[in-house]
Amino acid sequence: MAKKQDFVQHLTSRQDDFAQWYTDVILQTELVDYAPVRGCMVMRPYGFALWERIRAEYDKRFAETGHQNVYMPMLIPESMLLKEAEHVEGFAPEVAWVTQGGTEQLQERLAIRPTSETIFCTMYSKWVQSYRDLPMKYNQWCSVMRWEKSTRPFLRTSEFLWQEGHTIHETPEEAQQETMQMLEIYRDVAENIMAIPMLIGQKSDKEKFAGARATYSMEAMMQDGKALQAGTSHNFGTNFAEAYDIKYLSREGKLEYVYETSWGVSTRLIGAIIMAHGDDRGLRMPPRIAPIQVVLLPIAFHKEGVLEETNKVFERLKNAGFRIKLDDRDTVSPGFKFNEWEMKGVPLRLEMGPRDIENHQVMACRRDTNEKTVLTLDNLENEVSELLDEIQKGMYEQALKFRTEHIKNVTNMDELGAAVTNGFAKAMWCGDRACEDEIKEKFGASSRNMPFDQEAEAFGDTCVCCGKKAKKVMYFAKAY
Amino acid sequence: MAKKQDFVQHLTSRQDDFAQWYTDVILQTELVDYAPVRGCMVMRPYGFALWERIRAEYDKRFAETGHQNVYMPMLIPESMLLKEAEHVEGFAPEVAWVTQGGTEQLQERLAIRPTSETIFCTMYSKWVQSYRDLPMKYNQWCSVMRWEKSTRPFLRTSEFLWQEGHTIHETPEEAQQETMQMLEIYRDVAENIMAIPMLIGQKSDKEKFAGARATYSMEAMMQDGKALQAGTSHNFGTNFAEAYDIKYLSREGKLEYVYETSWGVSTRLIGAIIMAHGDDRGLRMPPRIAPIQVVLLPIAFHKEGVLEETNKVFERLKNAGFRIKLDDRDTVSPGFKFNEWEMKGVPLRLEMGPRDIENHQVMACRRDTNEKTVLTLDNLENEVSELLDEIQKGMYEQALKFRTEHIKNVTNMDELGAAVTNGFAKAMWCGDRACEDEIKEKFGASSRNMPFDQEAEAFGDTCVCCGKKAKKVMYFAKAY
Repeated sequence: MAKKQDFVQHLTSRQDDFAQWYTDVILQTELVDYAPVRGCMVMRPYGFALWERIRAEYDKRFAETGHQNVYMPMLIPESMLLKEAEHVEGFAPEVAWVTQGGTEQLQERLAIRPTSETIFCTMYSKWVQSYRDLPMKYNQWCSVMRWEKSTRPFLRTSEFLWQEGHTIHETPEEAQQETMQMLEIYRDVAENIMAIPMLIGQKSDKEKFAGARATYSMEAMMQDGKALQAGTSHNFGTNFAEAYDIKYLSREGKLEYVYETSWGVSTRLIGAIIMAHGDDRGLRMPPRIAPIQVVLLPIAFHKEGVLEETNKVFERLKNAGFRIKLDDRDTVSPGFKFNEWEMKGVPLRLEMGPRDIENHQVMACRRDTNEKTVLTLDNLENEVSELLDEIQKGMYEQALKFRTEHIKNVTNMDELGAAVTNGFAKAMWCGDRACEDEIKEKFGASSRNMPFDQEAEAFGDTCVCCGKKAKKVMYFAKAY
Repeated sequence: MAKKQDFVQHLTSRQDDFAQWYTDVILQTELVDYAPVRGCMVMRPYGFALWERIRAEYDKRFAETGHQNVYMPMLIPESMLLKEAEHVEGFAPEVAWVTQGGTEQLQERLAIRPTSETIFCTMYSKWVQSYRDLPMKYNQWCSVMRWEKSTRPFLRTSEFLWQEGHTIHETPEEAQQETMQMLEIYRDVAENIMAIPMLIGQKSDKEKFAGARATYSMEAMMQDGKALQAGTSHNFGTNFAEAYDIKYLSREGKLEYVYETSWGVSTRLIGAIIMAHGDDRGLRMPPRIAPIQVVLLPIAFHKEGVLEETNKVFERLKNAGFRIKLDDRDTVSPGFKFNEWEMKGVPLRLEMGPRDIENHQVMACRRDTNEKTVLTLDNLENEVSELLDEIQKGMYEQALKFRTEHIKNVTNMDELGAAVTNGFAKAMWCGDRACEDEIKEKFGASSRNMPFDQEAEAFGDTCVCCGKKAKKVMYFAKAY
């Protein structure tokens, strides 16, 4: 295998080849590496630290809304997987099967979980007895396995990390409320922490989760104009409850099926951060999710007092709660360091040399705009905090502006085809799968989701494809 | 499947049947449930919360000592597993094999990781280039799979959760220092947070990890006198580096093998907490690890002001940072609640009724001693904090006293056989495997570990088994 290079390498530009740019960035910033197993990935410290940040933000909100974490086994007997027909059909083709345990040939094949509805349902049917036990709102952080044909790190891999929430409720209203609440939590973190604007809405029947009554998603636009489905929340109604016999004694003393939801986000979100924010110099991390928010470089640090004063600043900012890295390596040049931290997307670089110390100041350089500012030492914590807030805001606005410019309202197939070459098409749609299939075949674009406020968003009554009466506003796009 | 009971059930006493007591406790306190897959377990919210607490304590210390978290793929190609001979021999018999991916029959079988030395080594050999890259100190929290013949939740299951640290270093001294540092971190958390006294020392060659040069362990005594190996730290020397070709350019400009360590603790620690501290009324959680430290019960809460005042106390203690649960269910009686929280081992129960409110006080009941105290509202935070500290200290001392009383210095096989019926035997040993085998065969006891200060601990020079010259002080015990 190739050894890593000692010097920062050239990144392909986004313009020249967006896919190659993505690959260059994830490998050279050491977010990830290819694993020696087909379609799997190795998450290196920088990539995993990003996932830990994402996990912490969501996990906190799950707990605040009354969810509890559990851990379910990773192996699922084939017979258990077969109970819900649509679900099997959706997942069976991409399951990895364990057939041998030690020296023993297994009587029944075991699936490595592609998702855990089947096992949650089996346990819920054992655990729930009466309405007093409801709701049960459980979540797990784990890895899942889907035997994908073509894979790309973070976007589609055979094994990936995610969370899956599974909840059961007394009433359809409660289940729907839960489904919407989790979608909103997904959106909140994605927009306010990761600075990625999201379109939220309902998926078509064709694109919904295998076994769901309704699936809702958040969809992000990447810089090549393609969509990335960044999180989904499903309302199962009583579909799985009927297949897995999850009944409870109701307030009226009758045995009733529970109403169920599930919802998930995954390491795909890392792909979204990379492709929503990155530029030709590498990653750009939004400050609120960045594993390292500030990198501090001593300049000319053989000079007396430089290391000492830089260390003081490091301690101050660390104690103020910033995620800060002091780069005092003497084995590489400042230029090398600038490139490296820029490529890694650290939002703010601070430099301190002899002259800065004399002037009681620090030089600051923003990763998002490349702007340089002088910060006074006296008020450093506040100024750093304000700068990070500005960067966060600026990055969201930039991504929003890009998205706005790349969504076109289209009224015929030519316009739709043109729009999806570098963005999303917003179209009126009859609701028929035949039209989705035709759009997919002609342009490689799929339906993404339908905004909630259909009335406000509607702009006609003719289906963009068949010309019949349109029922829905739908976004179409090529997608990851 | 049986539905859960509405009332607290009877626990088998430890005296009557320790194994059955354990099973009763883990199921009835809802730490865990059996999974529909042979030998796997479902970690329910209370059990998983305990694991999250353990994880947080260790993870913090790993980070403080410069370790970084990563995630490696769960599947390992058979050929990769085969590279280190001892390692294969140790793990191959208990590997679960994936042979089918989707509809495709795989060319090469893939092991679900039983441990990840092989994949870490493969990646390290790619990543490390020169001494400047060293040390690399990585850790991962994940699940592993070992196809065990007989299983018990937390103690031995086919799938379990753990962390595995893997580090590479320039010198043997550094690797040894790392090995010892991690053992010390393991001991620190086990003793000071989980209140379980540990014997730390080196394993025999027979009992060391497959592929290690030296294995060190911490061993805890359970209340049936059996040993539980609660954590291990291994020094591999260059053993794996040679098998996986992990070389770096040294300071002298030569290609050298790295020195490697690995170390792990697992959900077994939950088993240790249960069996070190539990009593016939259920679990007893040491306050520093307890998912719930304080449960607060309003008494006669239909009376005016009770719920309101209890809520105020709840908010105060929550804001002070205690992990507190307010149990204001009106569907069950106070007696039911007492039993339930007692069984779940919550260290401190607070009660507040109309008279307490009048007297500006709270009733406190310690789980460990059953002692009741009156706490004044004015000084509540401090008094709760002091009580929890006392409980923590008391539980550790109780466990230490039990262990001290159940370790016997033995000088012949009869004494050894007697000692291991209800505790540990401390013996002089010649160092030969033949004696370990004989002791195992006769008494079902295995060598546990050799204390570090051999000189101070020695008490003779004759092997307890063969009578030849003794080289080592060794603990022997039956073990989980």
